[in-house]
Amino acid sequence: MIESADFKNAMSLLASAVNVVTTAGTSGRHGLTASAVCSVTDTPPTLLVCMNQSSRSHAHFIENKILCVNVLSAQHEQISNAFASSKLNSEQRFKQAAWTELETGSPVLKDALVSFDCEIEHIQQVGTHSVFMCRVIAIQQNHPKEGLVYFNRAYHYVSEVELV
Amino acid sequence: MIESADFKNAMSLLASAVNVVTTAGTSGRHGLTASAVCSVTDTPPTLLVCMNQSSRSHAHFIENKILCVNVLSAQHEQISNAFASSKLNSEQRFKQAAWTELETGSPVLKDALVSFDCEIEHIQQVGTHSVFMCRVIAIQQNHPKEGLVYFNRAYHYVSEVELV
Repeated sequence: MIESADFKNAMSLLASAVNVVTTAGTSGRHGLTASAVCSVTDTPPTLLVCMNQSSRSHAHFIENKILCVNVLSAQHEQISNAFASSKLNSEQRFKQAAWTELETGSPVLKDALVSFDCEIEHIQQVGTHSVFMCRVIAIQQNHPKEGLVYFNRAYHYVSEVELV
Repeated sequence: MIESADFKNAMSLLASAVNVVTTAGTSGRHGLTASAVCSVTDTPPTLLVCMNQSSRSHAHFIENKILCVNVLSAQHEQISNAFASSKLNSEQRFKQAAWTELETGSPVLKDALVSFDCEIEHIQQVGTHSVFMCRVIAIQQNHPKEGLVYFNRAYHYVSEVELV
């Protein structure tokens, strides 16, 4: 039997991109920082997002059935912290940056490394979390290509220049 | 409509850990390099792995219903390449490194950053890929904590020392 703390410690060594996942609807704009995002298939273009059901934004994603995965670049640490902070409400979070829209109306971070605008096609409940299976219907890609990575409970940069 | 090439180009900017995912059974040991791995929940400890159904190893994972996610460290580029190479068979791939076992019998890379030994609990088909939902039943964690990251179609290092 694996203890929760041991699992979390081990998982902190699985490096990942840092993303702000957003949605919009009749209840306004909502979003949160998420690292559990991955590509599923390009036929059809699909990604998935894992989200804690206890997060304040969770119900809005369920209701709106749309989301945008905004992949953060190295300059976005502050935005990552804002969308992870329990002290800031939605309005305060979105004030930290400039936003636009693509197809679904979900907030698209103007200078994200890349943004995937999606329709949520399927939701699976797994323990405390929901796995959103999402069809990508629009993409916005920017420069420069310097990514923000979370590893061992700290931020790191990865640059376009090959390091190794 | 998103073209496959555009989707792949955009997804290359979603940084990720590099993992060798393995299984073992009556057909021997099998494994492949995978970046589409993420944590799902710690209650109960669960992760997921996305795998192309056309990969040579796929049928063995389905049959064995067990797998181990071996998270690679900075020194494992060669192992990553071996398990991604179509020119090497299973025997040739596993010869590249030293292996042990934990609970399920899936090959555990001895000096992986961390290894998650899992029972496959649920399999979902999404287009060309299978999403394996896996219960983690044993963990092996090593040092040093320098991780291998794939970003923008190149390897990068992230070190235990906080860079930013």
